[in-house]
Amino acid sequence: MADDTHTNEPDLIKDPDLEGWNQVPLHDGYVNLIGPYYVKTNDLGHTQTAFRAQARHLNGGGSVHGGCLLSLADTALYLIAYPRLEGSHVVTLQLDSQFISPGREGDIIIASGEVIRAGASVVFVKGQLQAQDRVILTFSGILKRIKPKV
Amino acid sequence: MADDTHTNEPDLIKDPDLEGWNQVPLHDGYVNLIGPYYVKTNDLGHTQTAFRAQARHLNGGGSVHGGCLLSLADTALYLIAYPRLEGSHVVTLQLDSQFISPGREGDIIIASGEVIRAGASVVFVKGQLQAQDRVILTFSGILKRIKPKV
Amino acid sequence: MADDTHTNEPDLIKDPDLEGWNQVPLHDGYVNLIGPYYVKTNDLGHTQTAFRAQARHLNGGGSVHGGCLLSLADTALYLIAYPRLEGSHVVTLQLDSQFISPGREGDIIIASGEVIRAGASVVFVKGQLQAQDRVILTFSGILKRIKPKV
Amino acid sequence: MADDTHTNEPDLIKDPDLEGWNQVPLHDGYVNLIGPYYVKTNDLGHTQTAFRAQARHLNGGGSVHGGCLLSLADTALYLIAYPRLEGSHVVTLQLDSQFISPGREGDIIIASGEVIRAGASVVFVKGQLQAQDRVILTFSGILKRIKPKV
Repeated sequence: MADDTHTNEPDLIKDPDLEGWNQVPLHDGYVNLIGPYYVKTNDLGHTQTAFRAQARHLNGGGSVHGGCLLSLADTALYLIAYPRLEGSHVVTLQLDSQFISPGREGDIIIASGEVIRAGASVVFVKGQLQAQDRVILTFSGILKRIKPKV
Repeated sequence: MADDTHTNEPDLIKDPDLEGWNQVPLHDGYVNLIGPYYVKTNDLGHTQTAFRAQARHLNGGGSVHGGCLLSLADTALYLIAYPRLEGSHVVTLQLDSQFISPGREGDIIIASGEVIRAGASVVFVKGQLQAQDRVILTFSGILKRIKPKV
Repeated sequence: MADDTHTNEPDLIKDPDLEGWNQVPLHDGYVNLIGPYYVKTNDLGHTQTAFRAQARHLNGGGSVHGGCLLSLADTALYLIAYPRLEGSHVVTLQLDSQFISPGREGDIIIASGEVIRAGASVVFVKGQLQAQDRVILTFSGILKRIKPKV
Repeated sequence: MADDTHTNEPDLIKDPDLEGWNQVPLHDGYVNLIGPYYVKTNDLGHTQTAFRAQARHLNGGGSVHGGCLLSLADTALYLIAYPRLEGSHVVTLQLDSQFISPGREGDIIIASGEVIRAGASVVFVKGQLQAQDRVILTFSGILKRIKPKV
């Protein structure tokens, strides 16, 4: 219907594989473009971020595009660090990644990780993307705290 | 008309800033989703890849999303290496990136770089993203040659 | 005496902090220069590599030199991967590192980590350096299998 | 003479390949251990750092140890940035590296590079190690400015 054509696949969240997940609470045009992304807090209190790989996420070789995986990693970097930011605005300073195995259409790809150190000026995070038991990508990144815009 | 409404902003290429560029010749669902991307060969014979940052590429802070920049970098990694692949299929093995300055809405962001070494099994590439004279991101990556699917 | 002048601080291994460790079994001139390094297998079957930071390992600022930490990381990369190499000779293809906190004189710095994937052509490893509970450095690296010299 | 036997291979600087270079002016125990290192400013005003690879720098495979290359890279990172530090003390925050080709005994290995951006809180550098025309290693790193100790 006309009144719901703008919504971003709202039925995906009914996917039994994503039960208990919530849509990412970011006002973020880019995540809306490539998402939706979903979040959940795991038993260790760490934030996990996920999406389901679809045809529109694939490269010409039929695997999930590297940039699509890195987009999830960069968003996850922020969400993993968020509980340790205590209100700081941050920017990504650096992101390293290793492509361990390809992502496939239909995979639910979940990013998880941890803060290695939350310092006064920078926050170190490492994490990985998995589809079930298969590691897709590992990453490390550094966020820099910046003064909030006033 | 209905039969061309699916094309992805074909008028952007008339942008005077992108005169002389061609749309990326990849059958790549993800590049169609986040692009269009444009390519040009510079005076040194190196392939440059570009896109115009639009509202849909921004994060919640109003800058171009890091994942959007990394998506361009990962695509450029392949296109920079392409003339040295001699028919090999490749996968990205690793990508490092440093976020030098933010990308802004309206920027034409251009990825350029060079092959450091094209070996028998891996290809080393480094490059950067710029908007005019401003460096946005630097990256280094390694591609691994794989046997073509038969 | 003449017969022991070539040994490399053999008494360090009597250090109670390094009880149960063995000197690294590598014929490696560089490790002899900057070491000695010690190894132990932890409860998960992972190889740990250690050294005691001394005055000769410090930079001008009084912390352990970054290159000294990276030297341990690069050696550990190989030793962590070793059980999965099955006789392959390897070279380091790439190493990423984040400097989490400084190493200090007197610290016993221990590198540990795990193989993320041991493929037919490359092996992915991640790890970290710690001094007691303090993380010093995190790293990720890729080794490439090469044909043995015959 | 007895009074200069503690100097670190002072005759190396007479090496015709290193004419015009000066010994690194760092009070740095680790550089003394693995060096000597030499510096020169190139035509672009960039600082280059060099050493001659000797038997004591080799790994068990007969190539220059990766950690030895990374030690030069980490020192060069600082020396490349130095003219832009304006008195700031800095620490290495992160270092990425790609191993392009092996270093060999006898090589004079020269590190060069440039500052990509010297910001108020961090400085981005990229560089490479070469032996004559052969690229040995490429690296990117970030230094963080810290308050000087008083």
